[in-house]
Amino acid sequence: MLDAADPLRDFRERFAMPPGIVYLDGNSLGALPRSTVGRLKTVIEEQWGTDLIRSWNRHDWIHLPLTVGAKIARLIGAAADEVAVTDSTSVNVFRLVLSALMLTPGRGEIVSEAGNFPTDLYVCEGAAQVFGRGCRLTVVPRERILDAIGPQTSVVLLTHVHYKTGDVYPMADITAAVHSRGAHVIWDLSHTAGALPVDLAAANADFAVGCGYKYLNGGPGAPSFLFVARRHQAAATNPISGWFGHADPFEFQDAYVPAAGIRRFLAGTPSVLANAALESGVDLLLEAGIAEIAAKSQRLCDLFIDLVERQCAGHGLQLVSPRQANRRGSQVSFAHPNGYEIMQALIARSVIGDFRAPDTMRFGFTPLYTRFEDVWHAVDRLKAVLESGTWRDARFAVRTAVT
Amino acid sequence: MLDAADPLRDFRERFAMPPGIVYLDGNSLGALPRSTVGRLKTVIEEQWGTDLIRSWNRHDWIHLPLTVGAKIARLIGAAADEVAVTDSTSVNVFRLVLSALMLTPGRGEIVSEAGNFPTDLYVCEGAAQVFGRGCRLTVVPRERILDAIGPQTSVVLLTHVHYKTGDVYPMADITAAVHSRGAHVIWDLSHTAGALPVDLAAANADFAVGCGYKYLNGGPGAPSFLFVARRHQAAATNPISGWFGHADPFEFQDAYVPAAGIRRFLAGTPSVLANAALESGVDLLLEAGIAEIAAKSQRLCDLFIDLVERQCAGHGLQLVSPRQANRRGSQVSFAHPNGYEIMQALIARSVIGDFRAPDTMRFGFTPLYTRFEDVWHAVDRLKAVLESGTWRDARFAVRTAVT
Repeated sequence: MLDAADPLRDFRERFAMPPGIVYLDGNSLGALPRSTVGRLKTVIEEQWGTDLIRSWNRHDWIHLPLTVGAKIARLIGAAADEVAVTDSTSVNVFRLVLSALMLTPGRGEIVSEAGNFPTDLYVCEGAAQVFGRGCRLTVVPRERILDAIGPQTSVVLLTHVHYKTGDVYPMADITAAVHSRGAHVIWDLSHTAGALPVDLAAANADFAVGCGYKYLNGGPGAPSFLFVARRHQAAATNPISGWFGHADPFEFQDAYVPAAGIRRFLAGTPSVLANAALESGVDLLLEAGIAEIAAKSQRLCDLFIDLVERQCAGHGLQLVSPRQANRRGSQVSFAHPNGYEIMQALIARSVIGDFRAPDTMRFGFTPLYTRFEDVWHAVDRLKAVLESGTWRDARFAVRTAVT
Repeated sequence: MLDAADPLRDFRERFAMPPGIVYLDGNSLGALPRSTVGRLKTVIEEQWGTDLIRSWNRHDWIHLPLTVGAKIARLIGAAADEVAVTDSTSVNVFRLVLSALMLTPGRGEIVSEAGNFPTDLYVCEGAAQVFGRGCRLTVVPRERILDAIGPQTSVVLLTHVHYKTGDVYPMADITAAVHSRGAHVIWDLSHTAGALPVDLAAANADFAVGCGYKYLNGGPGAPSFLFVARRHQAAATNPISGWFGHADPFEFQDAYVPAAGIRRFLAGTPSVLANAALESGVDLLLEAGIAEIAAKSQRLCDLFIDLVERQCAGHGLQLVSPRQANRRGSQVSFAHPNGYEIMQALIARSVIGDFRAPDTMRFGFTPLYTRFEDVWHAVDRLKAVLESGTWRDARFAVRTAVT
């Protein structure tokens, strides 16, 4: 059996997986590592409860944004002093877009991709409005990105793995092309970090952001991380210049003096609970190794595509993810005009994926806690939903707050 | 005894206080409510662990920023739909300063107070730089604030209770004076919310922010809250226009359309653990009642001042907090040239206050878990430290990361 031969098979026991569920939505919310339960208990009861304010020093809370950042750096090909954990992905996109704009006076254009994860576009729109100075956001389809970069372009914001299709950008090639046009690039690694290897150093990347609650298993609404290449750190400005980014935050002086290095990109007091949970999730990924994780991810996804196409043929499902494994993230998406209802019916049969408007059913594969047998079960139940037509039941058309 | 007659005396048992400690630093990090331990266990193990992604709907995670905001509203005299929980205080100051600047085209000056909590000034400095358009930050001493407001002033940022001295601004009078000069005011309630009553509605306040980890007992680095008066909500822009502030976040459209009402001031995916912990802390305050809390706070502080001045006379301590209770927050500060060393020596005797450079010893009084007997113990030990001179020991001069 594939599971018996899987070098990562023992990791599933390290997660608190509910029985009877096939969970294919770890790309939206990663599962709970068992170690996180204990870690949070310690942080809550022993550190916060007993040591109280002294924990900032005694348990080194103060350095968590950088110690966790240094661990994430190992997953994305960055140096330890190039990554920090802070705020949400939206706030970090905002921060880095403005940082990039301020690095290139005279260039005021932000370029991004139509259909990029929406918050990235929303945040760029807001950042352009705040920045003024003629700044504008240009949004074009993927195939026209490089052509859209002109002498006014300051920064290009791209998501390495597309949230809906799983398409992967060739990071090094695109980065080089952006640089050759005199602009910088921000890579959104939300669907990359913890799922597939990426080498920011080899790609000569400028900036990156990513999400803590998907493949990093940091918990619901976990903090985000940001990467600033060392060569930009001295010149780049953190527009949200809060006290945690100050050179001497506890001197309580009136004037802002940015810290040297990556710490200047912090702002307010970070959530210790959230950072501790994220660290616990990242530790598991480092223990397993990102190469093993990516290898299993490709096999899981290949098997899923193969089984769906063989067993669910004739029901109008259309693969929208790349068939070629090395051009695909750790997810497989199928489009169907009734994708919403089909996904709800599948969830009612305990296979949890998600739906992305207008028509995409998205299945995420998280190798640390997804078995090959889960793939078989998922496809069996998808086939049953399609063949029985139960998805036509009116209750599956009811929209919920979060889809 | 004062404690026996205290109507709030039973609340101390609701907190996980370490034995033998006199904790007078709840204004820096509030103590752990026992109910928070259980609440977080439920959120972590049952909601995240078992229900996984479905918890966003099933346990209404999606609305936590507004449900917790509505509860905080009751502590600060705001309407339920005027407060949201999101991000850090620094990020919220940044957001609201830019919002205010965008509300008053042609006016580009931010006015704040010299010696305000530093992150407020740092963030204004950064916001002015990002905004450009001739925007500038003017920082003047408290007594010159009103005179500094001119025809170019867009927004005034003031901290209602001074973090170092505990001085309280007369909110309604100042707000009216700012309005009469055509500007808006942002009140930082970090040392107010949960400690003393404030009535934003009666003061006709425009904007406010506050901290979740001090008197609200939301845990280390808890999220912040923001207030936007209903009359400004339609016109005000959230510069960090992330998907949680979008009218239809799960439609995944490329263009940003702000949500109606206070929700537009959200940005990225919020930390559920952090929001749940904050809600648990706020619930306790609502149960106790802010009027009772404030009344006891005044009695605790009055007693502390009285005992220190009687028992520690002749050691060079100088009261820097207002003597008049209704002009003072829930803290008492004394200046001393060796304040740092004295505070370290006091902490070594299990009385935990904190130090604010260059010379201020700060003692916070949190009526839910501070007893009158704690005040007596604290002063006894302060007297012992001063009379014995143990603070001169070299180990107490060693500076730590967080002071």
